[in-house]
Amino acid sequence: MSLTEALIAALGPDCVRTGADIPVRNRQDEAGYPPVEPLALLLPRDTAGVATALRLCHAAAQPVVVQGGLTGLVGGGQPQPGEMALSLERLRGVAVDVVTATLTAWAGTPLAAVQAAAAAAGLHCGIDLGARGSCTIGGNVATNAGGNTVIRYGMARRNVLGLEVVQPDGTVLSGLNRMLKNNAGYDWTQLYIGSEGTLGVITRVVLALHPAPRGLRSALVALSGVEAALALLAELEGAFAGGVQVFEGMWREFMGLAGGTLGLPGPFAPMPEMVVLIEVACPDAAAFEDRLGALLEAGVIADAILARSEAERARLWAWRESPYLMTGMAPRFAHFDVSIPRGAIAAAVEDLRAAQAAHWPAAPTAIFGHIADSNLHVMIPLQDGDPPTEAVEAAVYAVVAAHAGSVSAEHGIGIAKRRWLPLSRSPAELALMRTLKAALDPRGILNPGRVIG
Amino acid sequence: MSLTEALIAALGPDCVRTGADIPVRNRQDEAGYPPVEPLALLLPRDTAGVATALRLCHAAAQPVVVQGGLTGLVGGGQPQPGEMALSLERLRGVAVDVVTATLTAWAGTPLAAVQAAAAAAGLHCGIDLGARGSCTIGGNVATNAGGNTVIRYGMARRNVLGLEVVQPDGTVLSGLNRMLKNNAGYDWTQLYIGSEGTLGVITRVVLALHPAPRGLRSALVALSGVEAALALLAELEGAFAGGVQVFEGMWREFMGLAGGTLGLPGPFAPMPEMVVLIEVACPDAAAFEDRLGALLEAGVIADAILARSEAERARLWAWRESPYLMTGMAPRFAHFDVSIPRGAIAAAVEDLRAAQAAHWPAAPTAIFGHIADSNLHVMIPLQDGDPPTEAVEAAVYAVVAAHAGSVSAEHGIGIAKRRWLPLSRSPAELALMRTLKAALDPRGILNPGRVIG
Repeated sequence: MSLTEALIAALGPDCVRTGADIPVRNRQDEAGYPPVEPLALLLPRDTAGVATALRLCHAAAQPVVVQGGLTGLVGGGQPQPGEMALSLERLRGVAVDVVTATLTAWAGTPLAAVQAAAAAAGLHCGIDLGARGSCTIGGNVATNAGGNTVIRYGMARRNVLGLEVVQPDGTVLSGLNRMLKNNAGYDWTQLYIGSEGTLGVITRVVLALHPAPRGLRSALVALSGVEAALALLAELEGAFAGGVQVFEGMWREFMGLAGGTLGLPGPFAPMPEMVVLIEVACPDAAAFEDRLGALLEAGVIADAILARSEAERARLWAWRESPYLMTGMAPRFAHFDVSIPRGAIAAAVEDLRAAQAAHWPAAPTAIFGHIADSNLHVMIPLQDGDPPTEAVEAAVYAVVAAHAGSVSAEHGIGIAKRRWLPLSRSPAELALMRTLKAALDPRGILNPGRVIG
Repeated sequence: MSLTEALIAALGPDCVRTGADIPVRNRQDEAGYPPVEPLALLLPRDTAGVATALRLCHAAAQPVVVQGGLTGLVGGGQPQPGEMALSLERLRGVAVDVVTATLTAWAGTPLAAVQAAAAAAGLHCGIDLGARGSCTIGGNVATNAGGNTVIRYGMARRNVLGLEVVQPDGTVLSGLNRMLKNNAGYDWTQLYIGSEGTLGVITRVVLALHPAPRGLRSALVALSGVEAALALLAELEGAFAGGVQVFEGMWREFMGLAGGTLGLPGPFAPMPEMVVLIEVACPDAAAFEDRLGALLEAGVIADAILARSEAERARLWAWRESPYLMTGMAPRFAHFDVSIPRGAIAAAVEDLRAAQAAHWPAAPTAIFGHIADSNLHVMIPLQDGDPPTEAVEAAVYAVVAAHAGSVSAEHGIGIAKRRWLPLSRSPAELALMRTLKAALDPRGILNPGRVIG
C-alpha cells in the first residue's frame, strides 16, 4: 500500500485529494512562485486527523508542507516538488470565554472570524493585518504575524496564551493555557510561535483578548522627516498612554507612487518628506484635536487632516493601503519587509535613496511602514531595463545589514529569504536553529528547506 | 591541574573563591534550604569570563549552579553538593537608548537600578516585584518574573527584546535586538526566558521601555467576592484602557492575618469577603473618583478608600505587603504561588477553605494575589500540631490540579516544585522539556535537577 493509500485508509477518502482534484489554491502561496502540485492534499477535520496524517508521513519520512490561508509572501506554504500538503482549512471555530477574556480558535479559522467573535463578546483581538479575510489564525501564530496595531498589542506572540501542537511524529502537545501567569516549566509554546511550521503543526490557539478601544481618532499628519515622526510618537504615547493604536509612516516617494495608483493629488501641498497615519483611542474628541493643535503650534508637525467620519477615515487609510493596488502597475515589483533600529531609520532611508540613484534611477524607491515598530516596507516598480530583482535585493539587504537591521520584520523567512538570513543572524544563532530543528523534527519532514537549510 | 586551578589560571585569582572565602550569601537562596558550600564561587567580570568559566566546566562535565540576586523561592540558585557556583553579580550596568525606548543591562544589575535608569530617562521599566532592591535583571528574565504590574506590562518575557546568552560549552549567542519586529528565523531568546538557567546563562538583556504612567490613583476597595472583583476589573479596563496598573486581591482570612501582623484594625467594618488594591494611571483625578462613585452606586463595589497622598498610598500598600513581615509569626509557614483560571478562582477558594477545615482547622488559609493574572498566593501559618508541610502541599496542589491550574504562577519550579510539575504538565510536555534540555545542554551541567529531572 502506498503512503497515499494508507492516508486515505486512515483519514477517509474525503480527507485526501490527489491529482486534478487538488484545488489551484493549494498549489501556491502569495510569494509569486509558479504552482506546484503536491503528492496529495490532506484535509483532516480535527487534531486526531492531523496527528494521524503526521504519524504516517513521519514513518515514511515523507516531507510535508503545512498550509493555512496561503497568504504568506515568502513561500512557506508553497509546495515543493515531492511534498505532501497538509491544510488546516477544515479546523475552524472560535469559542470566547468572557471571564478569562480569552478565546480558543481552531488553527484554520480566518483571522476576520476570530476578530468578529471577540467583538461580538465586547472584546478586541490584538492581531490585525491586511489579509485578515483570508489568512488563518494558525498561520498568524506560526509566522508570528505583525500588522498595523503591533505598537499597541504587540506581535502575534504577545497575544498567545496557549497552543495545541502536533509534533512531526504525531504526538499531541496540549497547552491550551488561559492564565496570564504560568511558569510551570519551560514555556514550550514559544518555540512554535514564529518557527513557520518547521517544528510542529499548530492546531488550536488561545488568545488573550483586550478591552475594545473606545473613541478611535484618525488623522493624517505631515512631518519634516522621521525624526519629527518619532518625536510625535513620544508625545502621543506620553499623552495617551496605551491609546496609540496605529502609527504608519509614508515617505514622499511612496506618497507619489500612491497618488499615481489612486489617481489623487497628494493630501498635502507641497509634498512633505513624511506623512504619518495615526489612530489613537481617545474617548474625548476635543482632547485629541487640542493635542494635535498644540503639536502644530510647537512645530512638531507641519499639518494635519482629521477624519470626522468613517468615510473620511477610509480616505486616509486608502493612502496606506494603496500597495495592494500597485502590483499590476509595473512589469515587476521588488518588495521588501525589513526592520531597522529607530535611530538608524533616517540614515537607512538616505542609503536606500543613494542605492536607487546608483542602480535603478528611474524606479521610485517607495518606503512606508510601521515605523514605531522599526518595520519598513519598500516597493520598487522595476522596468525592463532595470537591474535584475536579485541585484536590487542585494543592494537593499546590504543597507539593512549595514544598519544592524533584520531581513524580515514580519513576513518571515520561508524559502524566499533563506539566503539573506545570515545577514541578520550569526553563525552561532544559525547553528542553534539547526540544533532545535534536529531535536524537534529529527527526520526533517516538516516544511523542509523553509527558514534554515 | 584541578578544574579549580584551571579556572583560577584562566579567570584570574580575584575571580575565583573557595572554602571559607565563599560568602554566606552564595551558599543558599531564599527557598529555606540549609546552606551548602559550592566547590568554588566563580565571579567573572564580563561575557568572555562567563564563556571561559563554562567552557572549562563543560569540558570537565562539572555541574554549575547559576546565581543572580539569590532571591528565588524554589531553590534554583541554591547550591547542591558538588556544584560550582557561577555568580553574575559583577556584570553590572545599564545603558538607556531613548530613541528606541529600550535599555540594555548586564545580567547582574539589580532590578531597582534598571528601573531607576529608565526613570531617569523619563521612561518606565515594565518589570517590578517586591525584591526589586536585591533581585537582578538576569534572574528576572531567566525566571520570567511576574510581580504586581503584570496586568499592565506582562511578565518579564513580554518586556524582553533581546538577549546575550552563553551556552553551556561557552559559545556566546548575541541577540541584543532593539526592534519590536524581527522575524529573522527562530526567536531563540524565548527559550532562555523562564527556563531558570537550565539551558544557558543570560549575560545581557535588552528591555522595551514604556511611557511613564501619569497620574497614578490608588484605592482600597471592598467587594462581595471574586466575581464582583472581576466585574470591577472589566469596568476599569473598559473605562481606563491601558491604565490599570495594579489589581491585587486579598480575601478575608488574609486581611485578618495581615491585621494581626500590622497591629491594625481592618480597613473596612464589617470585614468584606474580599478587598482589592487598585492603581490606575488617570491624569484626571475627578474622572477616577467619579468612576468609583458610579460603581459604588451601581453596587459593583461595597466601599472604597482613596489615597490622597503618598503616605496614604503607603498605608494601603502595607496590607498587600504584610506577608514580608509574617514569616516569623508561626513555627512554620506553608506558602504557595499558584494560578487558577479566573472563572474557577471562587470555587478553588472554597475548596481551599474545605481543605483547611478538614486538615489544619486552626491555621488560617490566607489567600491573596494578582487575581487579574489568575495568580493566587497562599500563606498558611502552621503550628506544631498541624500536619507536615508536605501534606499541606499535597492538599493545596490537589485543588490546583482539580481546577486545571498551574503549580507555579511566577516563582518557577526550581528544586522545590519539581515533584509537583506533573500536576500541571502532561507526559508529552515533560518529554519535550527533556528533549530541549538534552539538545541544548547535552552534558547536563547547567542547574542540574532544577525544573526537570
